[in-house]
Amino acid sequence: MEFTGLSAFPFTPITASGVDESDYARIVERSAAAGVDSICALGSTGGYAYLSAAERARAAALTVAHAGPVPVIVGVSAIRTREVLANVAAAQSAGAAAVLLAPMTYQPLTQDEAFGLFEAVDAELSVPLVVYDNPVTTGFTFERELHARVAALPSVASIKIPAVPTAPAEARARVASYRAHLPDSVTLGVSGDGTAAAGLTAGCDAWYSVLGGLLPAESLALTRAALAGDAGTASTLSARFDPLFALFARYGSYRVAAAVAEDLGLVAPGTLPHPVRGIEPAGRLAVAAALAHAGVARPR
Amino acid sequence: MEFTGLSAFPFTPITASGVDESDYARIVERSAAAGVDSICALGSTGGYAYLSAAERARAAALTVAHAGPVPVIVGVSAIRTREVLANVAAAQSAGAAAVLLAPMTYQPLTQDEAFGLFEAVDAELSVPLVVYDNPVTTGFTFERELHARVAALPSVASIKIPAVPTAPAEARARVASYRAHLPDSVTLGVSGDGTAAAGLTAGCDAWYSVLGGLLPAESLALTRAALAGDAGTASTLSARFDPLFALFARYGSYRVAAAVAEDLGLVAPGTLPHPVRGIEPAGRLAVAAALAHAGVARPR
Repeated sequence: MEFTGLSAFPFTPITASGVDESDYARIVERSAAAGVDSICALGSTGGYAYLSAAERARAAALTVAHAGPVPVIVGVSAIRTREVLANVAAAQSAGAAAVLLAPMTYQPLTQDEAFGLFEAVDAELSVPLVVYDNPVTTGFTFERELHARVAALPSVASIKIPAVPTAPAEARARVASYRAHLPDSVTLGVSGDGTAAAGLTAGCDAWYSVLGGLLPAESLALTRAALAGDAGTASTLSARFDPLFALFARYGSYRVAAAVAEDLGLVAPGTLPHPVRGIEPAGRLAVAAALAHAGVARPR
Repeated sequence: MEFTGLSAFPFTPITASGVDESDYARIVERSAAAGVDSICALGSTGGYAYLSAAERARAAALTVAHAGPVPVIVGVSAIRTREVLANVAAAQSAGAAAVLLAPMTYQPLTQDEAFGLFEAVDAELSVPLVVYDNPVTTGFTFERELHARVAALPSVASIKIPAVPTAPAEARARVASYRAHLPDSVTLGVSGDGTAAAGLTAGCDAWYSVLGGLLPAESLALTRAALAGDAGTASTLSARFDPLFALFARYGSYRVAAAVAEDLGLVAPGTLPHPVRGIEPAGRLAVAAALAHAGVARPR
């Protein structure tokens, strides 16, 4: 698979009895039908940190079964290396085209310890690996030198970086600061949906996208415009979602993704795993208004 | 049980095949024989975040079996409330006298979400609860108002607070800032071993202690002096360990606890769960020198 274009991160509806499999399958099918470039199951938006190993293995298999021809990346992160390796084996058995790995932490990890994790996983992999750099959820901050060390491992194909600045010159400088440490064979994917247009325009190859799992057609239009060099159209398409991105910043994209999925009728209410809770009613009205502002048509 | 005095947090030796049960049992027995006031299994030093639910249930039962008359507190934290409640049930079945709960996070939690976690656990508990406030490992910061809300729950008996300042006036002010929000029935326990003498002297009731699980006699002497109002002796006993506390700050207390346990012959080498790694050889020499500086006699 190529690690370019739009990678959709499906929201996983989680109830007291487990993953709502039929709703999850429909969310995956919706992205696949829109023609996204890849689907990444069990990312942060996929709630991986709240699921058991068995639930994760099942979700990985479901994703592959419902993604059609779209390659599936599966998140394998866990706090302990032993569990990561078990998740890797399960993901590969489920037919993952690649895996996504973040250095989750409880005890803060050193740069060397995080490298050791990637090295251990690299040794077991028969598919490519996407490095997941997300300090907010993992508590781990990559130094640029660690990006370089990890990128030199044979399986590493791409790095999912945090949000970039939205000002064009600053975005270019940020992307260049990553590129300077990476081989050409490793792609860079932006996250932080509100900065996707800026990141793609500044030279990122991919968008690892929360919105892509919810509104794949709209996210694809933005991605295609940016990667074709049409920064103006990409920026305009992104700006339609500015009120939604502001809610991402306020409530966290995970809670907003759940609210959007509810508003679109993709999931039932109450599908976030406690202790995480859904957004309060006033916030839900703001989410609905932000979707209306973006001109999103509800699927039912 | 009383939530006062010295609560020893035993280090749990973890190998590829699971907890080293005989070494762990000996560590627990060592604290019990010294007469510590409580033993808290499966805290951060106990490596709870790296163990499966089954391994944790087993370690809880082992602790109770080897603690003799000393009451055992069992750590029940997990990222998802469902798993916390399962750990609570297992801890209670194992004979825990109390449980210890931190709001572990993946998605950053709001104050209300963390309260919801404590409320859900409180509803299931038949033993008291110790609130574990540790921003460094959990990524969650308690506001003082949340301490107050949580402390009002019927099961909450004590709060384990982070390190306090070592300057006496600042320590008193810090402890007073907690007390102002808490009922008298809830005790305050200091952590951050290098600040234990300061915290106890400033009015904390308990020391939730890494050192107490490794060197219980020395830790008890410090605790008894401080709680008897002999700040000078407590400070002198603490100062013997300043080189060790400096290593806690440099390498993290978890890695240093493992190195101390090795140096004392309590555990075999290599009992930290990957991705966490042991301290490099130069650091181990520094640990040995710090123990010699403190006048610690090796048990073998």
